[in-house]
Order: sequence, then structure tokens, then C-alpha cells
Amino acid sequence: MALKTGVVGTGNMGQDHIQRLATSISNARVVAVSDVNVEQAKRVADAVGTARVHSEGHDLVADDEVQAVVIASPGFTHEEYTLACIAAGKPVLCEKPLAPTTDACLRVLEAEAARSERLVQVGFMRRYDDGYRAMKHTLDTGLIGRPLLLHCAHRNAATPAGFTSDMMITDSVVHEIDVTRWLLGQEVVAANILAPRRTSLAPEGLQDPQFVLLETEDGVLVDVESFVNCQYGYDIRCELVGETGTVSLGEQAGVDVREQGRHYGAVPADWRVRFARAYHTELQEWVTGVLRGEVSGPSAWDGYATTAVAECCLEALAAGRRAVVDLAERPAFYA
Amino acid sequence: MALKTGVVGTGNMGQDHIQRLATSISNARVVAVSDVNVEQAKRVADAVGTARVHSEGHDLVADDEVQAVVIASPGFTHEEYTLACIAAGKPVLCEKPLAPTTDACLRVLEAEAARSERLVQVGFMRRYDDGYRAMKHTLDTGLIGRPLLLHCAHRNAATPAGFTSDMMITDSVVHEIDVTRWLLGQEVVAANILAPRRTSLAPEGLQDPQFVLLETEDGVLVDVESFVNCQYGYDIRCELVGETGTVSLGEQAGVDVREQGRHYGAVPADWRVRFARAYHTELQEWVTGVLRGEVSGPSAWDGYATTAVAECCLEALAAGRRAVVDLAERPAFYA
Amino acid sequence: MALKTGVVGTGNMGQDHIQRLATSISNARVVAVSDVNVEQAKRVADAVGTARVHSEGHDLVADDEVQAVVIASPGFTHEEYTLACIAAGKPVLCEKPLAPTTDACLRVLEAEAARSERLVQVGFMRRYDDGYRAMKHTLDTGLIGRPLLLHCAHRNAATPAGFTSDMMITDSVVHEIDVTRWLLGQEVVAANILAPRRTSLAPEGLQDPQFVLLETEDGVLVDVESFVNCQYGYDIRCELVGETGTVSLGEQAGVDVREQGRHYGAVPADWRVRFARAYHTELQEWVTGVLRGEVSGPSAWDGYATTAVAECCLEALAAGRRAVVDLAERPAFYA
Amino acid sequence: MALKTGVVGTGNMGQDHIQRLATSISNARVVAVSDVNVEQAKRVADAVGTARVHSEGHDLVADDEVQAVVIASPGFTHEEYTLACIAAGKPVLCEKPLAPTTDACLRVLEAEAARSERLVQVGFMRRYDDGYRAMKHTLDTGLIGRPLLLHCAHRNAATPAGFTSDMMITDSVVHEIDVTRWLLGQEVVAANILAPRRTSLAPEGLQDPQFVLLETEDGVLVDVESFVNCQYGYDIRCELVGETGTVSLGEQAGVDVREQGRHYGAVPADWRVRFARAYHTELQEWVTGVLRGEVSGPSAWDGYATTAVAECCLEALAAGRRAVVDLAERPAFYA
Repeated sequence: MALKTGVVGTGNMGQDHIQRLATSISNARVVAVSDVNVEQAKRVADAVGTARVHSEGHDLVADDEVQAVVIASPGFTHEEYTLACIAAGKPVLCEKPLAPTTDACLRVLEAEAARSERLVQVGFMRRYDDGYRAMKHTLDTGLIGRPLLLHCAHRNAATPAGFTSDMMITDSVVHEIDVTRWLLGQEVVAANILAPRRTSLAPEGLQDPQFVLLETEDGVLVDVESFVNCQYGYDIRCELVGETGTVSLGEQAGVDVREQGRHYGAVPADWRVRFARAYHTELQEWVTGVLRGEVSGPSAWDGYATTAVAECCLEALAAGRRAVVDLAERPAFYA
Repeated sequence: MALKTGVVGTGNMGQDHIQRLATSISNARVVAVSDVNVEQAKRVADAVGTARVHSEGHDLVADDEVQAVVIASPGFTHEEYTLACIAAGKPVLCEKPLAPTTDACLRVLEAEAARSERLVQVGFMRRYDDGYRAMKHTLDTGLIGRPLLLHCAHRNAATPAGFTSDMMITDSVVHEIDVTRWLLGQEVVAANILAPRRTSLAPEGLQDPQFVLLETEDGVLVDVESFVNCQYGYDIRCELVGETGTVSLGEQAGVDVREQGRHYGAVPADWRVRFARAYHTELQEWVTGVLRGEVSGPSAWDGYATTAVAECCLEALAAGRRAVVDLAERPAFYA
Repeated sequence: MALKTGVVGTGNMGQDHIQRLATSISNARVVAVSDVNVEQAKRVADAVGTARVHSEGHDLVADDEVQAVVIASPGFTHEEYTLACIAAGKPVLCEKPLAPTTDACLRVLEAEAARSERLVQVGFMRRYDDGYRAMKHTLDTGLIGRPLLLHCAHRNAATPAGFTSDMMITDSVVHEIDVTRWLLGQEVVAANILAPRRTSLAPEGLQDPQFVLLETEDGVLVDVESFVNCQYGYDIRCELVGETGTVSLGEQAGVDVREQGRHYGAVPADWRVRFARAYHTELQEWVTGVLRGEVSGPSAWDGYATTAVAECCLEALAAGRRAVVDLAERPAFYA
Repeated sequence: MALKTGVVGTGNMGQDHIQRLATSISNARVVAVSDVNVEQAKRVADAVGTARVHSEGHDLVADDEVQAVVIASPGFTHEEYTLACIAAGKPVLCEKPLAPTTDACLRVLEAEAARSERLVQVGFMRRYDDGYRAMKHTLDTGLIGRPLLLHCAHRNAATPAGFTSDMMITDSVVHEIDVTRWLLGQEVVAANILAPRRTSLAPEGLQDPQFVLLETEDGVLVDVESFVNCQYGYDIRCELVGETGTVSLGEQAGVDVREQGRHYGAVPADWRVRFARAYHTELQEWVTGVLRGEVSGPSAWDGYATTAVAECCLEALAAGRRAVVDLAERPAFYA
């Protein structure tokens, strides 16, 4: 009755998924985990009472006990494990990115399309956030008219060591790329990146903040402030401007304190706090869907198209000028 | 591995609990339901794939398949089913009220204390609401100093047929009574009810709104506006005033819309919308605790004390003047 | 062309009025000031280039150069100066209270009514605050239906030396009494004062906070939290609950700062900051009106009725129980 | 004692200034007005009791009764009247723009600098808005660190007939250009304008909205959404992002209404409502300063530099690519 899941990768993200599947997702169990770091995999498995531990993701995918797979290993391994799941006919929730390159993404698309069955979901969890869902609902009711502009800000308090200017696109802005495509129901056709004054509080060599401009096929202009050493917290802002009104993410729920001459609320410390509920909803809806025989979340096409836009952004960043997205034709299977 | 629960009562509240336990609570299953209306019980059971249906709550409590019980039948039946659970040694989550009279509540207290084991939890779900929890956390950190006043408003859009002035206390204000005791960690010692001008939109004979005043043992004064035909939505407000600051429930999360000369957010339509997440958390924490052998939510003592304060409010309402709460001595078991 | 005003009293409030009349009110001049402290009066007069200084308020009222008078001397002197203005036929803006006792107020009423000409305006400046005016406008449009309840809070950061429990009524709550009468267009008929736990941060002997309950002739119930050592700032809150909706004062305008894990705005430091604009509007409308031959602000009747309710509150505070307002019949002149 | 002012131009803006100077500004009088439409000028003059009416602005400037001049005539006439005021040694408050071309502005600069006396103030009234002032104060305290980005939106409900894409820069965005220079204390060095999807609710031929990008000498990147047919109201937004925090304009003050499932506040209808107080403060500070012999508001240099940036924006709009601002050297007189 409960869905027997296996999780590839037991790093931070993998542990979060395992913990959720074991303790807060209904009708799911974690029956196997895998990691090249077997000792870590064993500790994580023990903590939630999971017996089966593999050192190789492919063994986990092949494990007969495993009905569905969550991939949370490093990005460069996503393609092979996802292909393995498709070959095995097992539903798979692959953390973003689907694959680091568009070529790799296309191979996944082809494999899935060849099977003529939706098996792949990509982990764009913002689509499960109450705020973004309410924005989409507001747009879809027609209340604010046809969309014209989308203003976004993506702020992190600070970056981990080794974080690069490219990763500000591939790790952070990639979420706004997905939100843009999903919210507007349109592809992004071009991108440009402007470089404002650098904060003195970012590590040497990091162009932080960046100001990203995206254009959709319908002419909607999207601006994204990506600022990953903003110091004060994790702050995600989004305002959609339509022909007759606007809708934006409100403040996070919480209490109002009045003290020492101020009235205030809290800004989340990081993405785990901010999107905890979105991750929960993502997993629960995936589990419930898979048990019904349905995979309906962000598709391999979404994974591919987002990677294609991110590549275009990297090209713009490197060249210092606007670049055009080179998008393959959408297979009929993903229409 | 999953907790096998049985639910007594398949009315609105029972159906909500059954639906949650079956589809969104981790590590729980609904193995049996009961209702005097057996046809309804069968339909509800079928919808979630539950095989065992009883016409009598006592049979469900006695059912060997059932490890833990949720009571959602009418209030006057709570005492007998809760006592049966205690006798059977089964953890029980009893919807409020624990019992309609203090005498009945005391019988439950005695039975549980006699067994020297916490089995009973009362369904005061506001303690599981993020907003109230953040208020309590703010108070407990000392940020606003020692509490002096608590301002509350409890507004419903409209009342169902047959709703009485007494029910405004026993069905609505009872939540503020629980919040007061839990938030402040103090007993309520006296109550008074003032009758403002009646709204012309309430049914004949209903004193709506009411203005309830509670006094705690520490002298904190609590005012509660109870207004159950306020027309515009379900609105729960709470501000705690301490010696150096205040903390209050913020607006519900959601989007900000700007349109036709206004910027606005939504007010929830009813308590199901407003407290959906609190009910979820209540059930999940109860299930997780029971599986660990712990019951730690609102206790039978909380159920008794809240009923005692509600009775005091009814006395004040009838007499038109301040009344004093007559509270039994707290058994050492509940210290 | 400009109105030649004289100001009686050059303490803090007098200086504020003089400064405003001299530098920011259109079509007004300060031609004379008076104070028993003549040295202070001279310094204040010099600062704004005013030549005429009197040691006696009566001399200022009698001064032929003075067309209209502002009284900002201590409350116990208000009656005699106001009567002198009426006798001289000069428009007078008298700071609250009109007079400290209802008997004294009645003498003013009679004198003005005998003259059959509106000359007296009482300094209830909240009626000129944008927020309160918008509340009244919202009520008057019918948007929230007939009023049922009014919730108020009046918080000061700290009290000056010598501030007494009675002064919390006569100096602070008196504003809420006026707001109640003006906003609702009804008289207050009864009052009660409850004594919550005292803050440990108030001076010995001060019952702070107090919780004041007022009842209007139409049955509207008004609650006022008066808390004058709340530490965190000057905070005036007001929510009016009607049959179909509510309207409340918003936060003060200002910027939103996001920094160190919080998003916040400022709470005003004191009443001068909070009501600076209301005082300005009060004076400007008074000057403009007087030049047109009209006095239309809060009347002597308003001054009397507010004092009568305040006396009732003091009686309730002393007796520890509800008291009834003893209101004289309203002269036809004030209908 | 009162400043005797003359107002050139009695159109909408002129009438607003005349009304303010006559009825709400302290220590000012309107002694003369002028307009080529003499009938209109007479009506406006009569309404405020002004005797002197000229058909020619130059006659007004030359009028011995006039101590200081406000220019509110069409933009193309600003240069000549401002030069006349400088020649006459009379302080002048010139509505924006100082002049429509940079060449014309430079002639004004030279004339004023030659006289070595500040006489000219340009009507950038946002510098007098409480919100913008609080933003500047917050920045200047160092609370949010060194500025990196400035996000602006400038939305009007609808445009009057004949409004062009160029006027979206010269009439609307010009305010954001001034705010940028004043808030950041830096010159703008380059501009670009992007054309998002056009709203179907704008008149034929109008590129609405526009997305303007400005770069300052310090590398701060400024984005301005200019959207002048947004339908829902007049909405001015501004967020400044610094190295350690952000500060933004809050909502306009006003009441919160809760009704029909929503909690809401008002968006201003137009700029007159939104900036009424800023215009008042601008005039009052100008009058008070002139009486003291000081002119300290936005200078002729500010007028010139803003026009130079606006010209750069028009160049970018026409060419469809980034353009560089060509700024003359700042005369020592304006250092």
C-alpha cells in the first residue's frame, strides 16, 4: 500500500528527502538508500530504519524492492540514473538539474518519449509553494489581465566556499527560470545579464549581485536580481504585472512584534526554512500520484528547457551581451 | 509500523480526520470507523479503503485491530468512549470538549490518573498553529517581558441554524480559553461577559457579538470579542501585551493583489481553511508520539479546566455579572 | 488679511502652537503671548518676532490687536480665559480639557449659548488625524454597516514624574472618549475600569495598564487599553467593528527596512511625532474657518460631555465598579 | 513679512501652486499671476483675491511687487522666464523640466553661475516626500551599507490624449532620474530602455510599459518600470538594495478595511493625491528659505543633469540600445 522508495545520494538534500519520506509523507517508505560514501549511507539508513544500503545508484535502481526512485546525488550523475530508471520503468523524482547540459537532457527526453510513458519528474519545488501557487491562480482567474512584466529577487544571506558566478545561474536563478516558464506558460527565448557594482562582502571573484533579464516568446520581460551575499536573510520576491493589476508574493506568515520602537516580522534564514512546506508538498503529491499511476509534476521537458535557458544565461554572462536561447523542437510526447 | 487508528464518528469532523489520516499523515492508517449511522460510516470507510465498520463506538474501541482511537462523535458521547479507551489502555485523541460537564471531565481525569499513564489528548488544535506557536516562542524568549493583557477576536462569517448564545462560549470561545491557559501557563480564575449592541444580521435570540473578559491567577486580563455573524470571513486575532512589547498573530500568508484602486489580501472563509495545517500538525505529532509511546498534547486536565472556565462563562452570561471559576485541585499526575 | 492670534500659556504645548502659527500655518500671525512666567513668554515671543507680551491672560484676551485666542495654559485656568473670550466676542481654541469639572464646563456652555454664537473650539486634535478621518469616512459610507464594537489601545513609552492613575483617564483616555463620541455620533452613557496586572516598570502607586469599558447610548461597547509605560513607543490603535466589516488605523507611513533577519517599520516615539500633522490641520482649519467667520470644530458641548464621561471613569476607578454618566440636557444651541 | 510671490502659468499645475500659496503655505502671498490666456488668469486670480494679472510672464517677473517667482507655464518657456528671474535677481521655483534641452539648461547654469548666487530651484518634489526622505535617511545612517541596486516602478492609471513614448521618459521617468541622483548622490552615466510586451490598453503607438536601466558612476544599477496605463491606480514603488540590507517605500498611510473576504488599503488615484504633501513641503521650505535669503532645493545643475540623462534615455529608446550620458563638467559654483 505504501510506496516503496529508494533514494540515491545521502548528502544534505538526500537526507532531507529521506527524513521527509520516513517521517512526514503519507503512504511512503524508504526501503533503500545509496551513496558512494557507504558509511554515510548506512548511518542515514539506520536513522530511519531502512535496511537496504547500496554503494552504487544503479544497484538501487535495479533493486526489486524499490518501486520509485528519488535522485539527490551530484548533478553530473543525474543523467545516468534517470536513464536507468526509465529503462527499468520506475517513476523517478530527479533533483534539479535534470542534467547539467542540454545534450544530456535531450538524451533523457528521447528515452522517455521512446517509452511513451511519463516516468520523470524534476525537482522544481517552487511550483508547490503556496505563494507561487496563489500567484498562478490569481493570474489564471484573469484578475490582473495578460502578463507584461515579472520582477524577481533571489537573495541568500551568504554563499558556501567555492560558489562561482556561474553557479548563481545554475543553482539559484534556475528556479526563477522555472517559475517564469511555469507561471506564464511560455518559453524563454533570450537572456542578458548585467553586472551591477559588486558587494564588498562577496568572496573575491564572485560577480554578486547579478541582474538577469529574460524575454519570453510572448514578449514578457522578466528581471531577476540574484544577490547571494545579501547578509540579512533568505528573501524571495516576485511580482507579476498584468494589464489590469499586479500580484506578488506576500511576506512569510508569522507574528508581528512591537518592541524598542519598531514593529517587525522575521525574514527566513535560508531556503530550507523558506521552502520546507513546498518540499513536503512536492514529495507528498509525487507519492500520491505515483500510487495512482500518474506522474504530473515538472517534466523532463521542463528540465531540458530550464537547462537550455541557463546555458543561454551563462553565454550572456561570459560574452557580456544578450544571447538567444537555442531550444529543440518540443516532442509531441510533451505537448 | 504504521499506527492502526480507529475513528469514532463520521460526521464532518470525523471525515476530515479520516481523510487526513488516510492520505496525508505519515505512518498512520485508518483500520476502522464507527457511527450510529452505519450507512454513512460505510461510505466514508469505502472512500479510503477501510474494511472494518462498526455501528457502536465501544465495538471500535474494543476492536483488536485498533491501536489508537480518534473520537469525533457528538460531545455528549465523549466521556464514555474516552473512559473505554482508558480502560482498554489505548491512546485516544478526543475532539473538544473532553466532556460537556466538569463532573464528566473529572471522571475521565480520575480514570486516567488511576492508570498512571497518559492516554488522553484533547483536540485543542490551535496549539499546533504556526502563528500561536510563534507567539508562545516570542513570549518564552522574554522579548516582550511578563504578560499583562491578551486581546482576542474570534469572528465567523455566519452561524449554522440552531446556534445559541451558550454555544458561542462552548464551541467558539473555548478555543480562546485554551489558548489563554496554554500561552500564559496560568489558570483562569474568573470570567465576565458583556453584551454589546446585537448585530441585526444574527438570528433572532442570539446575543451576537459577546465581549468576554477572563482573569488569570497572575492577574492577566483577557478580552475576547466573540462575533459569529460578522459576514466578511473567518478572522482570528490575538495580541499579547507584555511589560516591554507586544506580539500578535500576523495576517495569513498569501499573495498581495493590486487592482482597481486597492491592494489586498484574502481573509479565510472558515476554520477549515484557517486551521487546516494546525489539524494536520496535531494529528501528525500525535501519531508520531503514540508510535514512540508518548502522549504529550493537551491533557485531560486541560480538557477539564477549559470546561470549568466555559461553565463559569455560561454562569456569567446567565447572571449578567462576573463569576468565579470553581476549579478542582490539580491531581499530582498532571503536575 | 492674516488672522492676528494671541496665545495664552508658553509651556510646551503653547510653544508648539506658537511655532506652528508663526512658521507653518497659512494666513495667521502670532501678535501676542502671555504667561505668568514673563521671562519665558518674552523668550518665546522673541523667537518668532512677536512684540506684545502679557503677564496676564486676561490682558491678552482684552488686547485690541488680538482677533482670536489659543489657550494653552494649565487646565484649571481654561474656564476663566474661555469665559473672557466669550465676553469679548473673540473666537477661542482652548486646549483640552475645556475645564477640569463638569460644573465649570457648564458655565462655559451657558455663556456661549447666551451669546448665541459659536466662539469656542476645544483642542481634540485626533478629529484632524488622517487615519481617524478615514475611519469615519469609511463608517459613513456604510461599507462596514452599523457599529457594534470599538477596540482602542493608547500606549505611551513612559510617564513623566507625578503622573497618577487618574491622569491616565483625564490626560490620555479622554482622547478615546472624544474619538468615541465623534466617530460614532453618540453619547457615552456608562463606564467601567478594570485593573489588570500592573507592569513592574511603572512608578509605585500607578495602576498601569488600565482597561476601560465605555457604553454608548446605542449599545456600542468600547474597550480602551490605557498603558502609559509600555516602553516600546507611542502606539495608538483603533478598530471599529460593524455589522458587515471592520476598519482600523493602519501603521504609520514610513519605509520598510530589511536587515539582520527582520523586516520592519518604526513606531513613533511620542504624541508630538504621531500627531504633528493633526495639530497642524487643526490649527489651519481653525484659522481658515475663523477668517470666514465660522467655528466648526469640537464644541464646548463636546468639551463638557467628554469631561462628564471622564468624571464617570474616575468614579468607576475609585469605586471599582461600573458607573453611569450623568449628562445634562443638551442645549438646543448645540443640537 | 510674508513673501510676495508671482506665478507664471495658470494651468492645472499653476492653479495648484496658487491655491497652496494662498491658503496653506505660511508666510506667503500670491500678489500676481500671468498667463497668455488672460481670462483664465483673471478667474484664478480672483478666486484667491490676487489683484495683479499679466498676460506676459516677463511682465510678472519685472513687476516690482513680486519678490519671488514660481514658473508653471509650458516647458518650452521655462528657459526664458528663468533667465529673466536671474537677470532680475529674483528667486525662482521652476517646475520641471528646467528646460527641454541640455543646451537651454546650460544657458541657465551659466547665467546663474555668472551671478554667483543661488536663485534657481527646480520642482523635483519627490525630494520633499516623507517616504523618499526616510529612505535617504536610512541610507545615510549606514544601516543598509553601500548601495548596489535601485528598483523602481512608476505606474499611472491612464494617460491623457497625445501622450507619447518619449513623454514616458521626459514627464514620468524624469522623477526617477532625479531620485536616483539625489538618493545616491551620484551622476547617471548610461541608460538603456527595453520594450516589454505592450499592454493592449494603451493608445495605439505608445510603447507602454517601458523598462529603463540606468547606471551610475559608482556602478549602481537602477531599473525603472514605467507603466502609464496600468489601470488600477497611481503606484510609486522604490527599493534600494545595499550591501547589508534594503529599504523601500512602504504603503501609503490609511486605514485597513476588512470586508467581503478581503483585508485592504487604498492605492492613490493619481499623483496629486500621492504627492500632495510633498508639493506642500516643497513650497513651504522654499518660502521659508527665500525669506531667510537661502535657496537650497534641487539646483539648476540638477535640472541640467536630469535633462541630460533623459536625453540619453530618448537616444537609447530611438536606437534600441544602451547609450552613454554626455555630461558637461560641473561648474565649481555647483560643487
